[in-house]
Order: sequence, then structure tokens, then C-alpha cells
Amino acid sequence: MTGCPTALEAARRIADGSLTSEALVRACLDRIGEREPLVQAWQHLDMDAALNMARHLDQFGSGPLKGIPIGIKDIIDTADVPTGYGSPLYETFRPPRDAACVALARHAGALILGKTVTTEFAYFQPGKTRNPHNPDRTPGGSSSGSAAAVASGMVPLAFGTQTAGSVIRPASFCGCAGYKPTFGLIDRTGVRPFADSLDTVGVFATTIEDAAFFASIIAGRPNLRIANDVFRPRIGLTRSHAWEAAEPATATALDEAAARLRAAGLEVCEVALPERWRGLLAAQKTIMAFEAARSHAPEMLTVSDRLSVKLRELLKDGALIAPDDYDAAKALVAEARAGFSDVLDGLDVLLTPSAPGEAPEGLGATGDPVFNRIWTALGVPCISVPGLTGPTGMPVGVQVVGRWGDDRRALAASAAIGQSLS
Amino acid sequence: MTGCPTALEAARRIADGSLTSEALVRACLDRIGEREPLVQAWQHLDMDAALNMARHLDQFGSGPLKGIPIGIKDIIDTADVPTGYGSPLYETFRPPRDAACVALARHAGALILGKTVTTEFAYFQPGKTRNPHNPDRTPGGSSSGSAAAVASGMVPLAFGTQTAGSVIRPASFCGCAGYKPTFGLIDRTGVRPFADSLDTVGVFATTIEDAAFFASIIAGRPNLRIANDVFRPRIGLTRSHAWEAAEPATATALDEAAARLRAAGLEVCEVALPERWRGLLAAQKTIMAFEAARSHAPEMLTVSDRLSVKLRELLKDGALIAPDDYDAAKALVAEARAGFSDVLDGLDVLLTPSAPGEAPEGLGATGDPVFNRIWTALGVPCISVPGLTGPTGMPVGVQVVGRWGDDRRALAASAAIGQSLS
Repeated sequence: MTGCPTALEAARRIADGSLTSEALVRACLDRIGEREPLVQAWQHLDMDAALNMARHLDQFGSGPLKGIPIGIKDIIDTADVPTGYGSPLYETFRPPRDAACVALARHAGALILGKTVTTEFAYFQPGKTRNPHNPDRTPGGSSSGSAAAVASGMVPLAFGTQTAGSVIRPASFCGCAGYKPTFGLIDRTGVRPFADSLDTVGVFATTIEDAAFFASIIAGRPNLRIANDVFRPRIGLTRSHAWEAAEPATATALDEAAARLRAAGLEVCEVALPERWRGLLAAQKTIMAFEAARSHAPEMLTVSDRLSVKLRELLKDGALIAPDDYDAAKALVAEARAGFSDVLDGLDVLLTPSAPGEAPEGLGATGDPVFNRIWTALGVPCISVPGLTGPTGMPVGVQVVGRWGDDRRALAASAAIGQSLS
Repeated sequence: MTGCPTALEAARRIADGSLTSEALVRACLDRIGEREPLVQAWQHLDMDAALNMARHLDQFGSGPLKGIPIGIKDIIDTADVPTGYGSPLYETFRPPRDAACVALARHAGALILGKTVTTEFAYFQPGKTRNPHNPDRTPGGSSSGSAAAVASGMVPLAFGTQTAGSVIRPASFCGCAGYKPTFGLIDRTGVRPFADSLDTVGVFATTIEDAAFFASIIAGRPNLRIANDVFRPRIGLTRSHAWEAAEPATATALDEAAARLRAAGLEVCEVALPERWRGLLAAQKTIMAFEAARSHAPEMLTVSDRLSVKLRELLKDGALIAPDDYDAAKALVAEARAGFSDVLDGLDVLLTPSAPGEAPEGLGATGDPVFNRIWTALGVPCISVPGLTGPTGMPVGVQVVGRWGDDRRALAASAAIGQSLS
């Protein structure tokens, strides 16, 4: 899909004067005018304000993201526009301050184009967004609007968050790059908590290079940017313990990816995850439900009738989990974290499915994060690399997973893998 | 100091009908009337509303904390009264919802008596609170008001938070029990973040038993309550790598504690911390400054002139820390966490200073968390046990430190130690 240029291209051209923010934002708004009636990616968008801000940044802006529009998942606080958390409870909420990641983006010159649709509190109750490749299919969630907006060329960059699979899955379903960094890499202040030991701020972009560029600026880690030198990652292909959930679309995509990578001369070997890791999927669910029941106690104990049935059920279940079971789940995660480097012995990254298959039909659910939960629990960097398609022509991403804190290598490997796929 | 009864006593008597919440709150308010002009522990307190709420809870309340008044550090969101974060920037802020810990306390029947004074954003710029034992000395910080209110008998229980030493230090200076649980034990939703990987919600009480009782309810972990059976902890006394900061008051208190524990027949052996741990103090400072610079970016980038000089200096320094140095600090902490159990080999807990000495004179600073930083970085449970006094008669706590997640044993050991000290 076409639309606005890549963020790196836009940044280069704004810096050399061959592009203005106003022209860039106008192109984005034109694209939004065409596609938004169908896609419904935006929760809040003020076109006039965006153009005024673009003109302002053209005159007074500075920084590596000068004049580049970005979308903000509506689970993330913004001081100048409403922040609704995807819940009727917060329809009128105006936070006193930007979230840290938003403030840092503004400081880098970025233009906050608007708020993108989130599921309710970033859990499973969908918003209005549709998949830009087929309006009868889900865009995935919970970062539904950010993924759909970027994938349909409405905006080059957007923030999302992931607690189970809320960045990687919608990126795969919508066909863009999604990057969930190592836990804690991007500060969470001003991001509505769901499960404290899992919640991670991530980014969407049309290319891996753009995702790395954006995250490098927000995290203040210049070395995340993809270098021009050739990196030939050693790749471990793992079907993981969730493989029975893989549909033919994903099985074929993973085989296809491995074949193309080998054809490009890259080393791809099969990796079996430790048997003990079978318990990580349930452990992630236990941790998420236990923590969510506590973090949402203020709503659950006072206004539970205004929560969706899906969320209420999770919070009820989470409140019933015995602390010993939660502690055991955390202990298993800690053990697996400690053993992660052994699993990757001699390899740079793992290659594994982003999602069970193409985006499911229907808009009543956002798909299954079964291929994402364990990596989020482990806190390791994950990237959904676009480029492949399934049997009906819908996008199918493949997921690259790196070591804790080794985001630079995971991103560089993802860029190399992406080049082989496209 | 006298004042209200212990929380456990109050809970028992409210349950059996021999005490009403109204009478209890009235006793607290009387005490506040006497002491508050000097101590200045409260940021927001509505006496009429508190009495109305007490009468309401007497008629309709339920739960293990039914009718028991608690103080809430003003860094923690409350939906019904202002939440100012100790900063002029948030003087008029009214959060849309209670913090999770506040909601859980209300659900357990507690009465939110008011907001207690915090330093600015829970860093080092003091509020108005004075030490209840000597108004010319600091109460410590950042949970200044919570410690002073509990220690002066104004309220039996209060919430605090600790990022460096903000629970243990003021508990020691004011002479009450302070408990910083294992990282994450009490949910942080609605608590203003300072440094994401360090911030921990803790509690103040007049006794260890009360602190354990309160935390057990908020965390939903009944086994944290102190049992009646005799527990004879094996204790490792460590002067730690910060010993050069210990004043005579603390050196004497630690010796005195060890002597009394041995006299009571408990095993107390000397433990030297690993040489590698010398770096943990600097590591904690690096992590705290690096993360604070990011979490406070919204204020620092827009309204820095309304931050204190102390905080601004930290945020400036933190923004200049190289990510590699931050990563190295985190790696050292992870290594020390992995080796913690070896340090405690055969022991139940460590005994170490709570603070360098008695509360320092003057109100312009809140004292030094040098004996707290490494334990907060390690995320392990810490309890300041009251009972001893220094050369001028001011309280001097001793700190009990347990293994990650072993809060039950750390609390039980603290209770046993407390009995030997008093």
C-alpha cells in the first residue's frame, strides 16, 4: 500500500528542505480521507490542528523527527487531546501531562497526528478498526488503530503497547513492521497499566529500518539504528510449543521464509525450545490475569458494569488465582530468562510465527496471541517482519526474537531477514 | 508515643462491637489536633468528611480493615481528594480514579483519612513535615508524612513508596515500623512513577504485626500475617559496604540489637557482602537517575522551571547517562539478585542499618538513603524495626532484609527481632 514516505526518507527530505511537514501531513491526511471511512483507525484526529502544527514545526521545529507525524495508541496519555483507554469510563478524560514517550517524541520534533484506536484497556474487547486489507477481518489488537493506520499509509510511525501480543499480532495481520523492545526499553510513565511485569511500549512502522530509527530516538539509544553494513544473522527457526495453533498460512510462511533465507545464503537451523518452557504459555496467562485483577481493582470494585464481559471475566479469574500459583509462574519465567542464552547458543536470533495465520474473519475478536505470550513474559525483543502473504492474499508476518537487551542485533537481523523476504 | 490503638487491636474490637470507627477516628482526630500544628504530616485532611465516613462504615462497612483509618502518601492517586505529588505543578490535580492499593484498601473496609505529605515527586525536596520527636529534625523522606503521622499516633496505618530509601529511612527516623515489600508485591497502578524498575509501594505501622496485617490484605496474601508460633530466625548481621556512613548512633544500635538478640538465644553471625556488591550503590543511583530522566521528561521538557533545583539536577544528570552504563548497572543488579541466596546461605534474614544515624538536624534535607539503595535495587523485602534510640533520645531503627519473595519469613523474623529489642 502506498501513502506517506518512510520516516527515514521523510526525515532526510525535511532536513534537506525538499519536503515540508505541511506537505507530508497533507499527504497523510489525504490518505486518511481516502481510507479512514473503511479502516476506522483513529479515535481522535483534528485535521486543522495537525496542519497548523505542521506549519509551526516547519518554522520552529527541530530534532531528528522534525515535522514527522506519528500516531499514539489511545492507551497512552496525551495532554492536548482526550485519552480514552478504549473504555466508556474514560471518554472525557484529559490527562494532566503527556506520557513520557509522547513527550520524548515531541521533543524530537515529531507531530502528534492523533490517537489511534485501542481495544478496551488494551485487552480483547475490540474497537471500531477494520483490517486495511479486508474490512471484514480484524486488524488484530490491542494496538488495532496504530497497526492499521501505519499499514494503510496514513502515518509513517505509531506507538503501541504489548502485554501478550498487542504489537506483533496486529503488525502481522495488517502487514507492517512491529517492534516490541526488551521490557523497559521505552519508559511507561503515562501509559495505562494492564499487567505491570509485562506491559511494554512498542512501535509500528512500514519498514524495520523505520521502526529502529523511531525507537532509537525515543529510547535515546542511537545504536539501535540499522547500519548500512551487511549483517548475516545466524537464525534459529523454532516452531515453539504453540505450533499446534499454526494454520497452513503460518506454516507455509515460516517454511517460505526459511527457504528464502537459506537461498540468500543465511544459516537457518531448527531449534527446539526446552521442554520446561511448555509451561510458559500458562505462566504468562496467570501473571497477566493476576496482575490485571489488581491494577483494575479501582474499576472492578466500583464500576464493573461498565467493563466488557471479556475483561470482567479475566479480572474475576485473576482475583481467584492463588498467590502461590502466581509466584510459581514468575519463578518459571525467571528460570527461562536465565536459560535463554543457552537456547540461542551460537545463534543471533530466533525466527518463529508472529500469529497463527492470516487475520481471522470477523470484527468481534482480535485473534490469538498464542505465539507472542511467552516472549512477552520473557521480556525479550520481538519484531514482526512483513513481506509474506497467506492463501487469501492477506499479510502474514514472521517474528524475530532476540536476547534480553540485545535489541540492536534483533533489529539488524530483522532488517536482513526482511530484505530476503521482499 | 500514644494515640490510636494498633490496627490489629482496632480490627478485633470493631469486629466484636467494643469499638466503633467513629470513636477510633475521633481519637485519631484528637491526636491530630494536638500534634499536627507541630508535626505537619498531612497534605489534605477533612475532619468532618472523615467522621461522616466513619459513621457510614460503622453502619454499612465490612472487611478486615472495616472502619480503620489509613493515611495515603500524596504520590498515590485518590479519586475523592486532590493528589498533588508534592509539586506545585499538580496542586489542582484530581485523578479520575483511586490507585489500585487505595481501591483495595477501601474494598477491605478501610477509611481513607487523608493524604500525607510527600517530598516533591518522592525525591529529595522536602515538604513541610517535621520529626514528631523533635521539630527541628527531618522526619526523613520521601514518605515524610506517612512516617510522621503513624509514629505520632495520628493514624495506625499508612501507605508509602520507596525508590531509594523512602520507607525504611523515615520509619527509622520517626520510630515506627516500615515495610518495603518485594518489588511488585503491591500493585503500583495509580502511583506516580519515579524510576520504573525501583518504585515499590510500602506500608507504615506502629508494630511489625500491624504492617504485616495491612500488607497481607492489600496484597491478598494472608500468609504474610505474623503467626503466634515462636519463630527463631537465624540472623546474618552485615555492616554492608556503606558502613563508613554509619554514625555512632547506628553503630551502637546495631551492636545493641545483636547483643539483645544473642541474649535472647538467637543465632547472629557476621556476614560480609560480596566484594562485587560494592558497585551496587552506584548502580542504584545510575538506574534511578536514568529512569527518572525519562519518566519526568514531560515535566522537564515543558515546565522545568517549576521543578526544584535538586530534582532538575538529577534529571539533567540522568539524561546524560550513557545507555551502556545503565545497562551495565542493570546487569550488576541482575547478577547480585542471582547470587543473593548464596549470601544468605543457612540464614533467614540479614540485619543491617536502616539509616546512618538519628534523624539529622534541620528540615532542608531528608537524610541519606545510603543503607537502603542496594536493597531496593535488589528488589528484596526490607523492614525497619523500631525499638532502639540514639544518644539524643531520637529513634534509631534496624533493618531486616529477606530473600526475594520471602516476605513472610522477613516479616516473621522482624517481629521476633522487635520483641527482643523492646
